[in-house]
Amino acid sequence: METKDYFRYIVNEIHTVVVATVDNEGFPVTAAIDMLDTDDRSLYFLTAKGKEFYDRLKKRKFLAFTAMKGKDTMSRVAVSVRGKVKELGYEKIPQLFEMNSYMYEIYPTDESRQALTVFQIYEGTGEWFNLSKKPIERESFVFGKENMETRGYFITDNCIGCNKCVEVCPQTCIITATIPYIIEQNHCLHCGNCLTVCPMSAVERR
Amino acid sequence: METKDYFRYIVNEIHTVVVATVDNEGFPVTAAIDMLDTDDRSLYFLTAKGKEFYDRLKKRKFLAFTAMKGKDTMSRVAVSVRGKVKELGYEKIPQLFEMNSYMYEIYPTDESRQALTVFQIYEGTGEWFNLSKKPIERESFVFGKENMETRGYFITDNCIGCNKCVEVCPQTCIITATIPYIIEQNHCLHCGNCLTVCPMSAVERR
Repeated sequence: METKDYFRYIVNEIHTVVVATVDNEGFPVTAAIDMLDTDDRSLYFLTAKGKEFYDRLKKRKFLAFTAMKGKDTMSRVAVSVRGKVKELGYEKIPQLFEMNSYMYEIYPTDESRQALTVFQIYEGTGEWFNLSKKPIERESFVFGKENMETRGYFITDNCIGCNKCVEVCPQTCIITATIPYIIEQNHCLHCGNCLTVCPMSAVERR
Repeated sequence: METKDYFRYIVNEIHTVVVATVDNEGFPVTAAIDMLDTDDRSLYFLTAKGKEFYDRLKKRKFLAFTAMKGKDTMSRVAVSVRGKVKELGYEKIPQLFEMNSYMYEIYPTDESRQALTVFQIYEGTGEWFNLSKKPIERESFVFGKENMETRGYFITDNCIGCNKCVEVCPQTCIITATIPYIIEQNHCLHCGNCLTVCPMSAVERR
């Protein structure tokens, strides 16, 4: 899937996500927020200017969120996004309310909507994580100008093929056909068990 | 409801929550995590020692999470918790796997479970937020030694009863029987519209 597919999935299939910002003391704060629209390259949500959430967005201009779907852990799909935000103001509010008419129940009067403002998540990285597949599946994506963030673990030339990493890998996603061994990135749980047990310190984080 | 009721609701009715930690640069990171058990005073979850998530927990010893339930925004219940965490180690792992047997599918072998470790969220604050009620309902709670965190907005003696706040309040939760007006805390959306429009600066954040 491409970035636009992930964004459409977030807006149309999940919609309410959990957003994290950071407070003045450097500690995380979470809240449920609806992703109201996408133009395939970015995401749009709204908040009220009187909220502390608004102040945190204006200060750091950054957020992280995870969108989840699935009735239990083993059928779960999660999309996590981290990126930069900018405030667009009131202009897009009427359009977002038309597209998401339940918002009229939360802010029912014109007066109550005057202090609302739209934010755009315009640049960042994301990860799709599917626990319903065996082995699990994950994909990274990027939007805006951000370079692809490479995460996870890889095995260096220090590998001696001793198999200790294979023994502790919960997803059996280490290919042993050649030395150094190779981690199948799209099936890796990122548990880091391989890094923990390797006697040669051959496993490194990206 | 009491803290133990919120914790039981999180573990038994929601289970998978979105947890936020903060990276070395001070930016938030989110991920889906299962809350596996509660003793009515704290919550328990596990992670692997090789994960970056583990390093962030060890460094800040703090997390925030939001647990959501409901098929759409207007039927949504969300419980948000912020608090201190401590690592308990491997001892409780077998018990947590017995209670949550699907975890055997993610970490299927004894070897793959050796680097797992349990964390306890032992002190903090929480908020219950119910958007399915009109006006909305919210309740705060506390656990461990943390003092109750009072959030939201209140109206000071500067209030002149001009009614501007009433006009912009989306939840009509400002009582005008006496001056200063009073905000019904358990129905307040925390949008801060009242603070934004008050000509007397009579509305303050707690």
